Amino acid sequence: MPPPPEPIPVGLLGATGMVGQRFVHALASHPWFRLDWLAASERSAGRSYGEATHWLGEGEMPSQAAGIRVEAARPSSDCPRLVFSALDAKVAGRVERSFARAGHVVLSNARNHRMEPDVPLLVPEINSGHLRLVREQRRRRGWTGAIVTNPNCSTIGLALALAPLRPLGIRRVVATTLQALSGAGHPGVAALDIVGNVVPAIAGEENKIATETLKILGACRDGGIEPFDAVVSAHCNRVPVVDGHLACVSVDLEDPSPERARELLANFSGPPQELDLPSAPARPVRVTSVDDRPQPRLDSGAESGMAVTVGRLRPCTVLGLKFVALVHNTIRGAAGASVLNAELMWTRALL
Amino acid sequence: MPPPPEPIPVGLLGATGMVGQRFVHALASHPWFRLDWLAASERSAGRSYGEATHWLGEGEMPSQAAGIRVEAARPSSDCPRLVFSALDAKVAGRVERSFARAGHVVLSNARNHRMEPDVPLLVPEINSGHLRLVREQRRRRGWTGAIVTNPNCSTIGLALALAPLRPLGIRRVVATTLQALSGAGHPGVAALDIVGNVVPAIAGEENKIATETLKILGACRDGGIEPFDAVVSAHCNRVPVVDGHLACVSVDLEDPSPERARELLANFSGPPQELDLPSAPARPVRVTSVDDRPQPRLDSGAESGMAVTVGRLRPCTVLGLKFVALVHNTIRGAAGASVLNAELMWTRALL
Amino acid sequence: MPPPPEPIPVGLLGATGMVGQRFVHALASHPWFRLDWLAASERSAGRSYGEATHWLGEGEMPSQAAGIRVEAARPSSDCPRLVFSALDAKVAGRVERSFARAGHVVLSNARNHRMEPDVPLLVPEINSGHLRLVREQRRRRGWTGAIVTNPNCSTIGLALALAPLRPLGIRRVVATTLQALSGAGHPGVAALDIVGNVVPAIAGEENKIATETLKILGACRDGGIEPFDAVVSAHCNRVPVVDGHLACVSVDLEDPSPERARELLANFSGPPQELDLPSAPARPVRVTSVDDRPQPRLDSGAESGMAVTVGRLRPCTVLGLKFVALVHNTIRGAAGASVLNAELMWTRALL
Amino acid sequence: MPPPPEPIPVGLLGATGMVGQRFVHALASHPWFRLDWLAASERSAGRSYGEATHWLGEGEMPSQAAGIRVEAARPSSDCPRLVFSALDAKVAGRVERSFARAGHVVLSNARNHRMEPDVPLLVPEINSGHLRLVREQRRRRGWTGAIVTNPNCSTIGLALALAPLRPLGIRRVVATTLQALSGAGHPGVAALDIVGNVVPAIAGEENKIATETLKILGACRDGGIEPFDAVVSAHCNRVPVVDGHLACVSVDLEDPSPERARELLANFSGPPQELDLPSAPARPVRVTSVDDRPQPRLDSGAESGMAVTVGRLRPCTVLGLKFVALVHNTIRGAAGASVLNAELMWTRALL
Repeated sequence: MPPPPEPIPVGLLGATGMVGQRFVHALASHPWFRLDWLAASERSAGRSYGEATHWLGEGEMPSQAAGIRVEAARPSSDCPRLVFSALDAKVAGRVERSFARAGHVVLSNARNHRMEPDVPLLVPEINSGHLRLVREQRRRRGWTGAIVTNPNCSTIGLALALAPLRPLGIRRVVATTLQALSGAGHPGVAALDIVGNVVPAIAGEENKIATETLKILGACRDGGIEPFDAVVSAHCNRVPVVDGHLACVSVDLEDPSPERARELLANFSGPPQELDLPSAPARPVRVTSVDDRPQPRLDSGAESGMAVTVGRLRPCTVLGLKFVALVHNTIRGAAGASVLNAELMWTRALL
Repeated sequence: MPPPPEPIPVGLLGATGMVGQRFVHALASHPWFRLDWLAASERSAGRSYGEATHWLGEGEMPSQAAGIRVEAARPSSDCPRLVFSALDAKVAGRVERSFARAGHVVLSNARNHRMEPDVPLLVPEINSGHLRLVREQRRRRGWTGAIVTNPNCSTIGLALALAPLRPLGIRRVVATTLQALSGAGHPGVAALDIVGNVVPAIAGEENKIATETLKILGACRDGGIEPFDAVVSAHCNRVPVVDGHLACVSVDLEDPSPERARELLANFSGPPQELDLPSAPARPVRVTSVDDRPQPRLDSGAESGMAVTVGRLRPCTVLGLKFVALVHNTIRGAAGASVLNAELMWTRALL
Repeated sequence: MPPPPEPIPVGLLGATGMVGQRFVHALASHPWFRLDWLAASERSAGRSYGEATHWLGEGEMPSQAAGIRVEAARPSSDCPRLVFSALDAKVAGRVERSFARAGHVVLSNARNHRMEPDVPLLVPEINSGHLRLVREQRRRRGWTGAIVTNPNCSTIGLALALAPLRPLGIRRVVATTLQALSGAGHPGVAALDIVGNVVPAIAGEENKIATETLKILGACRDGGIEPFDAVVSAHCNRVPVVDGHLACVSVDLEDPSPERARELLANFSGPPQELDLPSAPARPVRVTSVDDRPQPRLDSGAESGMAVTVGRLRPCTVLGLKFVALVHNTIRGAAGASVLNAELMWTRALL
Repeated sequence: MPPPPEPIPVGLLGATGMVGQRFVHALASHPWFRLDWLAASERSAGRSYGEATHWLGEGEMPSQAAGIRVEAARPSSDCPRLVFSALDAKVAGRVERSFARAGHVVLSNARNHRMEPDVPLLVPEINSGHLRLVREQRRRRGWTGAIVTNPNCSTIGLALALAPLRPLGIRRVVATTLQALSGAGHPGVAALDIVGNVVPAIAGEENKIATETLKILGACRDGGIEPFDAVVSAHCNRVPVVDGHLACVSVDLEDPSPERARELLANFSGPPQELDLPSAPARPVRVTSVDDRPQPRLDSGAESGMAVTVGRLRPCTVLGLKFVALVHNTIRGAAGASVLNAELMWTRALL
């Protein structure tokens, strides 16, 4: 894919939070996009990004971003057409709609619009056809802009591990997640609650995994998505890990052969790989045969955090096949996912 | 149950290791048993327990134990008839047999003999009838002593959470464990491998859970155990937690009602409760309705570490019922289990 | 000391927070005091303590406390004369004064009044004579009640380790602390900031250690405290430990002999030991000679969390003597300290 | 500095251990050196590096290294003249001498020869003049090769933070370290000993810091090193951090001005910077003014792990100046240090 003739200006909503910072990091060296505009809460507005932000990442804040003035999260003529959203769910619904209404294409990481029938829940390797919903969305809502979402940070790892297995006949899935702290944002989980401990519950997460996964794998029909015909049940746990959501998955398949599964997973690819998009991993799913991998600390950075790693493929005496899947929750599960979505949409002239 | 008229002398094999230390701690203040004799590897033999042992527990080593001379792990006339074994699996098979042959009743925490057809895998609340195997064992092997085992530290939590549900018709079980570091002994897991990380594999553990659970829940018939008619599939993970194995369990039940399950779990009891044995928890299964409990650090000490805590009872869209179960792996899952077994056996005149 | 003829009713300010919960735990089984009244923020007032509190401790909330109605933090005729305060520093100053003015004796864990000239900063083993300030305080302020404070959670460990060394001529102290998460309250430190990490700064803490230590060791003269004549410099770090503040201390002493220091520390005692107060540790300072102890997880519970443990006494080539000291920060460093203060004051007819 | 006309072949002793793996990683993409030969214990000899090594690092083993045959650690004609040593101290002394005697230039990370009078303890920014010892070493020992060492992983952070302050008149130093797990190698510290805990002792470490620091800062005179005229006292702690040794340092200086110290630290540089060596950090000491930095997880990777970060420069009421210093212990404190030493020696025709 030839790059755009000149950098595409982009905006960012919710820039000072943890996911917002991941966007700033991802965009700082992006070959196509240039971060020109950013917004945060009223409290931060008017200050420079450098002043307004308690930088959480390794190393230092990208210097270009540090100098940008933080705006209030309201549509304005200065804001580019393409806007990434790292907004908190408490405000994302309202704010994102106001931007879409004002003509912006909002690539959102928030949960608010994911399950709406005319909003794509996009994973470019799996369901690029869902982008057809954008036209339907504009028609129904009378918007010139649009909202396109990416999945919950634990859902995307499961979805990328299941999508390649569709030829084997997926019927039922039991997934137990061990989720990293960064998935809860900052400050998020109190250290006192999790050091040397596990919390076996994450509010709302099990339902998101059950429903979002089926929409992602579903088919686009008649201006909506028909959910994939399977059942997913999740147990979610928080563990004292910085980055990387792990899932232990048992799947009921018509053909539960570990060998076929391994082959399908390792060879899986989609439009991002064909188009060689800048954020696309060479292989969206990496299969490891090391006994005790994938591990969050060692493997979640695979392919710059954009590949899911699957290991321990073996028979499950109850459901047929079992395995472990790992995703970097703030890259492939958040900022990186949105940026990849934007890259795909640019190639389809949807920006 | 009236206590024994005078203290029952006991011995301990593998006294210096982590589980051995838990036995020393449990026996230091035991109302019935008195630790008189202890053995460890040749390297330690001849020194006092205080000198030979790098004490890992909180606080200080019990002073009575500190002065006992460490013996080599060979049957001797000084060794009491009742012997607890915290031996490593590498030597436990051979050594425990030599003690049983020499007339000792060995209560073993090691995996070596658990699955042998004439060896009880005893959980007093569940299968006290399996003690009938002791006579069969003596007959077949020509021993005057015996070997009685307790389950693997993760199996026992699952078994105690499943046993009360048998009236609901257990058919299939998928269990994902998040296991504590102490389950791997000392030194066990390298800190560098697990701090801020999860290791999604524990060698041999998944098979132990699948097979031991069915033996525990099985029926004693014709001098052997007929395994319980169900299928168990496990995923095992190591997490950076000190004590407390957690399991996320989905169960296929004929009647998957969470309310019935809650009632059966909360009201479960057995011979240890009826006999009011010294190590018996008032309730072997404690049910919590707090949203995000049980948690290893907060709940594994319930009832001095002898109760399993079950929480988050709710429907599973795939298998019917799901929940979280927690067990203190070095107490109910090791030393405490053996001591409770010995208490029960004393009441049955089997010591 | 004969116990009071009947239980002494007590109140508790700031009951729902982390330190407040430690007070509830400590008072639940206290032989002299009976928790009759408790207060928290307006948000909690009117509900039962059980409903208003997210219990953070191990096991379950004491059932007696669970049923008490939470009051607003205002003096009232229902509130007993003796009131413990676990209030946050943001409100403690004002609220504690209002209670003292209304005739209550407030035993405060907050920092607000600690350094005021007529307020005792009491450590019963060290400076029980400072209680003479109570009369001065009442005279000056016209109160019928009083405020008596206990030190910051890291200061008290240092003070208890230094006090016995006064005969050796303390001149200068450099102390580097490694402080536990519970010292920051709940939610306190974000897990994302500290898992697999250290934060080398704690706001305001270094100054508290430098000044409070000298007041504690100081002499009561002319209605005030003359600070101890020495200099203390502190470096404070937050580490991913649940409970237990560790300090690495170098001391410039006129006589830096480790042997004399060991003897003085091990034999140290004071009025709580002489009076055998219910919360008094048998030895306020425990000296260990194990190479790599004290360790927070293994040793902070010594003597029910009321003893400081000192280890690694050895020469310091720069200042003379160096050692490691450990204190349980929410027991001896907070709730337990206040309760011990109250016990001493009762014996002196100051309640 | 112009690069060598063609790649310089190098060997590696102790290649399979944790530090050895860091060397393999560092050399995989090195612009001057090419790893041609590697050795490990007899157990591994004969197998490929890929087979013999349990790779501990993030991501995958460099593929070029994976195919190299592991040799026994004996001098041979196949082994290049330049050899890095990541050997364990138990064997390093003997093996390194045998290589030096056989004509190899050994750049050693082991402690064995560091304090010998004719062996440079090299930190290129500080004491490149110490390389004059190489000639003396060859003369005395009759070797055609040589041994050049780099400091202990915690010493180097302290030395790089102190060297720039020499103009201010360093007299005495008290340093308390909080050291990472990787400093103890693999398996190293048992997880059970350190999760949620701190161990306030590291065998031998305090003495190494006290003596190595003074040799590093010393002057080369009469074929030996005259130690720097100051006194260093260290307290060492192990903390549950993966990489990055932190030190809290108080220094007695003739001129303790934080401003002058800041300026000297930030402007410090030496031959590696002048020569623009491939592994040289742009600034060997980075000064941060963020309140609560440096932090191991966020800052130890600064300048690819080759810069020391200093923060919290402020007055010390006891010794004059205090600050926090952080070093990446397996890069600047081990493999990266040796590689930088080799780069400097190549520019001085010493290889």
